[in-house]
Amino acid sequence: MPRSKESCTKHALCPKLEAALQIISKKWSGLIIHALMEGPQRYKDIAEFIPGISDRMLSERFKELEEAGIVIRHVYPEVPVRIEYELTEKGKQMNGILDEVAKWAERFC
Amino acid sequence: MPRSKESCTKHALCPKLEAALQIISKKWSGLIIHALMEGPQRYKDIAEFIPGISDRMLSERFKELEEAGIVIRHVYPEVPVRIEYELTEKGKQMNGILDEVAKWAERFC
Repeated sequence: MPRSKESCTKHALCPKLEAALQIISKKWSGLIIHALMEGPQRYKDIAEFIPGISDRMLSERFKELEEAGIVIRHVYPEVPVRIEYELTEKGKQMNGILDEVAKWAERFC
Repeated sequence: MPRSKESCTKHALCPKLEAALQIISKKWSGLIIHALMEGPQRYKDIAEFIPGISDRMLSERFKELEEAGIVIRHVYPEVPVRIEYELTEKGKQMNGILDEVAKWAERFC
């Protein structure tokens, strides 16, 4: 089966699905996206919301999510500088996935 | 907020959601579950379906998914022995999540 990024109808290994799962299946990414569904937040808000994550890991995940176009970083030139992270439209549209995960978790976890 | 496994209504860091995301956010697990949505399959079928995964990783993920109650392993005492992996009801109920991922992927990947 050609592995181009055509739209995938049948349940074959669709490159698009694979790409999406690889974004979501990075440890902590799902929880970060879930936390940002509440709106723009500062680094330390997210760090407090996810107690188990290290600073290095959180920075790394933010960088990846920015590169994937899921998160946008706002820098406000105040004193001290204020930095906030916000979901892009692409990120916000993941709420359907998180809602399904929450439904499944409610039943099975 | 007490971190007991009570049902979670508000978008707080819900232990159930966290547990579910940690299962799903293991690299390759989403793709393995997706592949098994087609029905019971042998190890080599899954290995072929997901070209990028190593044997060691596939065995590890199968073990974790069995422990999480998402996959069941059938051993048929034939010659040679036939082993098949199948989604449990808990695993099959993840189709809602995968459908949402596929919808999102179709739009954004």
